[in-house]
Amino acid sequence: MRYLILAGALALAGTATLPAYAATTHIPDAAVKTAIQLRKQARHDDTAYQLVRDLTTQVGPRLAGGANDAKARAWLMARLQKMGFDRVYTEPVSYPKWVRRSESGAIVSPYRQHLVLSALGYSAGTPKGGLTAEVVAFKNLAALKAAPAAKVRGKIVYLGQAMHRFRDGRDYGRIGSPQRVAGPPIAAAKGAVAYILRSAGTDMHERIAHTGVTGFTDPAKAIPAAALSNPDADQLERELASGQPVRVHLDLDVGFDGRYTGANVVAELDGSRYPHQFIDMGGHLDSWDPGTGAIDDGAGIAIAVGAAHLIAQLPQRPARGIRVIAFANEEFGLWGGKAYARAHAKDVTGHVLGSESDLGADRIYRMSASVKPEARPAVAQIATVLKPLGVAYDPKRPGGGGSDLSQIHGVGMAALSLSQDATRYFDWHHTSNDTLDKIDRDALTQNVAVYAVWSYMAAQAKGDFGSGRGAFAGDGAGE
Amino acid sequence: MRYLILAGALALAGTATLPAYAATTHIPDAAVKTAIQLRKQARHDDTAYQLVRDLTTQVGPRLAGGANDAKARAWLMARLQKMGFDRVYTEPVSYPKWVRRSESGAIVSPYRQHLVLSALGYSAGTPKGGLTAEVVAFKNLAALKAAPAAKVRGKIVYLGQAMHRFRDGRDYGRIGSPQRVAGPPIAAAKGAVAYILRSAGTDMHERIAHTGVTGFTDPAKAIPAAALSNPDADQLERELASGQPVRVHLDLDVGFDGRYTGANVVAELDGSRYPHQFIDMGGHLDSWDPGTGAIDDGAGIAIAVGAAHLIAQLPQRPARGIRVIAFANEEFGLWGGKAYARAHAKDVTGHVLGSESDLGADRIYRMSASVKPEARPAVAQIATVLKPLGVAYDPKRPGGGGSDLSQIHGVGMAALSLSQDATRYFDWHHTSNDTLDKIDRDALTQNVAVYAVWSYMAAQAKGDFGSGRGAFAGDGAGE
Repeated sequence: MRYLILAGALALAGTATLPAYAATTHIPDAAVKTAIQLRKQARHDDTAYQLVRDLTTQVGPRLAGGANDAKARAWLMARLQKMGFDRVYTEPVSYPKWVRRSESGAIVSPYRQHLVLSALGYSAGTPKGGLTAEVVAFKNLAALKAAPAAKVRGKIVYLGQAMHRFRDGRDYGRIGSPQRVAGPPIAAAKGAVAYILRSAGTDMHERIAHTGVTGFTDPAKAIPAAALSNPDADQLERELASGQPVRVHLDLDVGFDGRYTGANVVAELDGSRYPHQFIDMGGHLDSWDPGTGAIDDGAGIAIAVGAAHLIAQLPQRPARGIRVIAFANEEFGLWGGKAYARAHAKDVTGHVLGSESDLGADRIYRMSASVKPEARPAVAQIATVLKPLGVAYDPKRPGGGGSDLSQIHGVGMAALSLSQDATRYFDWHHTSNDTLDKIDRDALTQNVAVYAVWSYMAAQAKGDFGSGRGAFAGDGAGE
Repeated sequence: MRYLILAGALALAGTATLPAYAATTHIPDAAVKTAIQLRKQARHDDTAYQLVRDLTTQVGPRLAGGANDAKARAWLMARLQKMGFDRVYTEPVSYPKWVRRSESGAIVSPYRQHLVLSALGYSAGTPKGGLTAEVVAFKNLAALKAAPAAKVRGKIVYLGQAMHRFRDGRDYGRIGSPQRVAGPPIAAAKGAVAYILRSAGTDMHERIAHTGVTGFTDPAKAIPAAALSNPDADQLERELASGQPVRVHLDLDVGFDGRYTGANVVAELDGSRYPHQFIDMGGHLDSWDPGTGAIDDGAGIAIAVGAAHLIAQLPQRPARGIRVIAFANEEFGLWGGKAYARAHAKDVTGHVLGSESDLGADRIYRMSASVKPEARPAVAQIATVLKPLGVAYDPKRPGGGGSDLSQIHGVGMAALSLSQDATRYFDWHHTSNDTLDKIDRDALTQNVAVYAVWSYMAAQAKGDFGSGRGAFAGDGAGE
């Protein structure tokens, strides 16, 4: 936080033609020129779209540890190997496996109604034949926390707080995610037999449930947990409003299933001058199973690969290498990102700057950074080149690096945040609706242009961005 | 059609204060005044909304012949009996029963993908364990019709023509409905093993399939038939575009299941002067099973009941009676409407004017009529009272009476068409998304106001509208 006041002043001073001086990181004029050229090329390049199209069509859903996990990795490695990267390899990631076999539910009284629902990650299964219990509803997480266990014991807990659409998707962090992640263990600890919630989604009129992970970590303490579609939550609330006891039946054949070892897939372009320094970017290869993982997060991988591919076609490699990481199992809790941070903490100085794309495929509207103060001029130079793409630079806001890369940022990698317009994202997030048709081809090229520009400029910068100084941990910028 | 030229001229002459003369039907001033009062009251009356809310919450889906068929009838009769009608009774309707037990499907090659689909009404089931066959795609119905049987035999036929949104919902009649109704029997006759289509719906980005009836009438000639959600149709088309043979697996446990006798539910307000003359209005009580039948067609019943309820509260009954019909089994082919027409053909003169609401709950923007020329002045008077509600009168267009009432119109009942804005309707039509939240409360009161106005004015008209003259059959106005 102490960086931020200084940073603002330096940002104002920063221009694309700032003279080089020792203490300050800057980007040479020739690199700025090339970045402008990449920006233009990216807007007419279809590589990213083709990648996410083919990934979602030829592989489809990619639940971590599921049948498509290894298939997706093999598919992506084959694809990357044909694209001019200097090196494609994997790094192992191990995590508890969770499986979804079937799921169904209904309100059984006072009025029988089918429920469209989705079991949540790390949810326990119900006993064979399902379970039926009375529902106790709480207004929000605080009310559940405050409730005496006697009110909860033996009941199905329901939380129904709704999310609304915002460009920055803020209701996911404020409402949707806590209600889904933190709520179930609290209900379980108070003796609830199951936990259901209004989907963490802004599609208020679709009979489509939003899955996602819970905060259960110990299989012995997990209870069945599921999300209802928004109209089904409305229906349940109408029955609750009748004042009569409401009983719900849940039949979830899901649960923990041993351990799985997958891998992060890494593709590298060599640096021409600093073989041990890299710019990190990427997305995550796993997806939730109901959709085909187009916006979450096929797009993220496509954007990073599309950007690196443009850089790969330049007559020569930039000074530093470019590393594209397709992370394993982000969805169940950043397992790929955590493994990457553990594996690379010792060489974090070589991870010069990083940013991951994991909020869909709509346009980037804002950049922020967590870098050393002396690198702000270089960030401001990047901002100048990004400006015509509609990206504003907010020098007062930290940059968290995105979902998985937040983990290595937490151990010292300098990072950007490139905020995408998330207005529509939570309509489709973690649902069967996460499909290719949600990707706007033009918006995708804007993302590719942004990633090509910043990664190339950072790779060509004179001076570093502060990685390895241990100064970014806990700056609260994780996404 | 020969009425229409004359009608235009008379419509121009028609005003709310037209003097009464023998040959011309008109509405007395006092009735016009009361209609204006009803129009105002309706806009603040919540009766219709409460009815459709409770029907969809307390009963839910109402598949014709299914478990909720009798339940819905009993529920509605009990409700109507408390609402001040003079008579509530049923008239039997018999039809072949069709059941849906389970349905699933997938593309199995070249790339395995789960398919979101819904079996269609009167579809045959697949053999136990499902069937797998290669897909042959046709651009549209004409191409399927023109195809040699050799190209179709043993294959799964796919039609993928898309609908677009229009206020008058025209693509349903032009594309969606023919592709779903006419297509399957044509494919079956050419030896196809199954038929799949792009859902007849305008929600291009929802993984939600639109069910609906096919044209199969003989169980022995039916083949399995199902609709894919729009994004699943896109996925299938991408696989077809790969040029490789595409094989699909379908497992539909559905089919004809004997015969069922249900009933139309009729609620009447007595006429104070003409006990054997009625104004007919209503909707259909059955719905498709995936949703709760809110817009199709709980709303139609609610609108008619809401309107009649306002009239019931007037100090005295209008000259003619008001009849609200909640039709049985519209969805599988107007079974309730056909039974009603058969039962009442002999007394069609007593069905003075009719119109059914069956295109959702959005605002009515246009009125048209099929009446005798001498009744046009009265229709113009109705139009004058409806105008402040945003309803335009098109005197050149026939009025078909709506879905079920089109049948008695076909045997001579004079009829109106009250066209609702269908821009959003086909996003939700015949899907799990047909739920209460799709109903705009204010738009619903506009519909109630329109139905209260026209039905009351017609019930008070001096002179008739031409029912029983045998002149309306085949005027092409059926909806």
